[in-house]
Amino acid sequence: MEHLVNTHEIVLTSPLDMHIHFREGAMLRVVAPLSAEAFAGGVIMPNLTPPVDGLDRLLQYRTEIDEAIAGAIFAPYMTLFFRAYDEVELRAARPHIIGVKLYPAGVTTNSEAGVQRIRDAEPTLAIMEELGIPLLVHGETSGFVLDREREFLSIYARLAQRFPRLTIVMEHITTRDAVALLDEYPNLYATITLHHLQLTLDDVAGGLLQPHLFCKPIAKRPEDRDALLRAALAPHPRVMFGSDSAPHPVSAKEAAGCAAGVFTAPVALPLLAEMFEQHDALDRLQTFVSDNARRIYGVTPPEKKVLLWREPWQVPARYGDVTPYYAGRTVAWQLAQRQSRAGP
Amino acid sequence: MEHLVNTHEIVLTSPLDMHIHFREGAMLRVVAPLSAEAFAGGVIMPNLTPPVDGLDRLLQYRTEIDEAIAGAIFAPYMTLFFRAYDEVELRAARPHIIGVKLYPAGVTTNSEAGVQRIRDAEPTLAIMEELGIPLLVHGETSGFVLDREREFLSIYARLAQRFPRLTIVMEHITTRDAVALLDEYPNLYATITLHHLQLTLDDVAGGLLQPHLFCKPIAKRPEDRDALLRAALAPHPRVMFGSDSAPHPVSAKEAAGCAAGVFTAPVALPLLAEMFEQHDALDRLQTFVSDNARRIYGVTPPEKKVLLWREPWQVPARYGDVTPYYAGRTVAWQLAQRQSRAGP
Repeated sequence: MEHLVNTHEIVLTSPLDMHIHFREGAMLRVVAPLSAEAFAGGVIMPNLTPPVDGLDRLLQYRTEIDEAIAGAIFAPYMTLFFRAYDEVELRAARPHIIGVKLYPAGVTTNSEAGVQRIRDAEPTLAIMEELGIPLLVHGETSGFVLDREREFLSIYARLAQRFPRLTIVMEHITTRDAVALLDEYPNLYATITLHHLQLTLDDVAGGLLQPHLFCKPIAKRPEDRDALLRAALAPHPRVMFGSDSAPHPVSAKEAAGCAAGVFTAPVALPLLAEMFEQHDALDRLQTFVSDNARRIYGVTPPEKKVLLWREPWQVPARYGDVTPYYAGRTVAWQLAQRQSRAGP
Repeated sequence: MEHLVNTHEIVLTSPLDMHIHFREGAMLRVVAPLSAEAFAGGVIMPNLTPPVDGLDRLLQYRTEIDEAIAGAIFAPYMTLFFRAYDEVELRAARPHIIGVKLYPAGVTTNSEAGVQRIRDAEPTLAIMEELGIPLLVHGETSGFVLDREREFLSIYARLAQRFPRLTIVMEHITTRDAVALLDEYPNLYATITLHHLQLTLDDVAGGLLQPHLFCKPIAKRPEDRDALLRAALAPHPRVMFGSDSAPHPVSAKEAAGCAAGVFTAPVALPLLAEMFEQHDALDRLQTFVSDNARRIYGVTPPEKKVLLWREPWQVPARYGDVTPYYAGRTVAWQLAQRQSRAGP
């Protein structure tokens, strides 16, 4: 392959999805292969029920994932669910994890076991800083839905100051203010999802209400989306792609109370290619979906070339009982593998 | 009844719901009797398919309503769907209508036939002003979902200035800014719904997404809700209760694209009583749900005493195939009639 980017195809080298919900059991077996097909690795979220908050549980979950993606070239970067860990636990876990994910209690799916007061987290954070274990954070308060991330920014700032050698990843940022905060503290990083690069609250609730576009944090204002897009397209050296792909069965979405989560794993790379092309930035996609993450986390993913073809692809209506993002719509790009393996 | 308000019961004299969606056919026959049971009259919205934009169609719709509520003491105050009407049409319609309802094109359910440019409406508005026919307005632009009402306020201001003798009702206002605008122009009035007195966007999208709380205009911020509540409890002399009760079958709500509308007709008075009591304002409920509307519109509704008892009532899960607001929850007050007529 002499030209990695031309008008008909692109080759991504070891693309990474730095924020994925794989779930367990039957759902895991539906969704994990789709990520493993498109990506060379990804950060696996630990907010199961019960949470993945011990090494035994983590290794057991890892085994379940390995079985689900058997044969694929894909590194599952495991995370522990934040609780008060001691140094012995974290030293033992360190070879098996890429970081520890902190959820404030009750702010999103399966976060009931999360942290009640950030201050109580500090002893564990000090150990993580010492051991070089990154902190991944769902940064929302329990305030008014549109203010939750912005209200959390002062907590990010305090943590970044208090633990200057701790790598702190602001997960799935959704606001202009969060993007701006990146430039305030050198140890702050961020993941950005596909859907937050495309959606505003208008898409979720401006016409008919769209349960399949409902997620946490909720999509914000146009100026927020635009700031995220600028950061991703540049790309800002401290942002990485993390889909926050979060499958729920249709019965949990089209319901009187609709669960939060957008399932983007199988459509993420085609849609990112389309978007970066529209902004004349295809040559920067590799940095956003892989290079930045390698540098930030210091990981070396398995070698994997992922070919995307510029040929219209209609997104399937369902994967198992999950409605994907862009269901039934047509994307200008597709994973080359799809030529022989159509949607289920 | 010597005391119209005591700790166990209240008697409302001819309560009015100044903004209702009765629909047609089978849905009309389910929902209209519920309004007719609780209220002495109400303003019936004309956004059917096709819209009620001629006298023949209006009289036919009125007949259908009369049949659905046969025997009830209830005055359906009819409205025409705004289009370019001439003076002959409006003079003929005047005895049969309480006002003309203007929808900007495409901003809500069945508004496709609405006004493209407000300026084009001015000749008709001049005739309405001359004939003393009130203008009712769905005041939203097609902008970002949270800004639509605020963006429309300058249009209200312009209309109020340009047609100083025209009664202009800002329907279902949802923002602090709209409340403030009332005090700028003496010919501006407003209806306020029950649900906008109770909900913010947090209730709709802050936890699980709640399709049955999704409406247009969408519920806004806490400070907006609080301003509406102050205006209703006072009550501001130019606000009236208008439920905007808007039934949809469950299949249109718990769906991939959820229709906008909250069905509050059968629960409105019990919940208003509970809310006014909580704010020590039960003695002002009569003004909010009846007296202001009579004065503003100059109507004399049929004489009807509606008794509410302070006795817990569990709201039914369904009325026909419609999930009501507060479904399955308990309200401290109930319509006395419910003693003998339980929920369907």
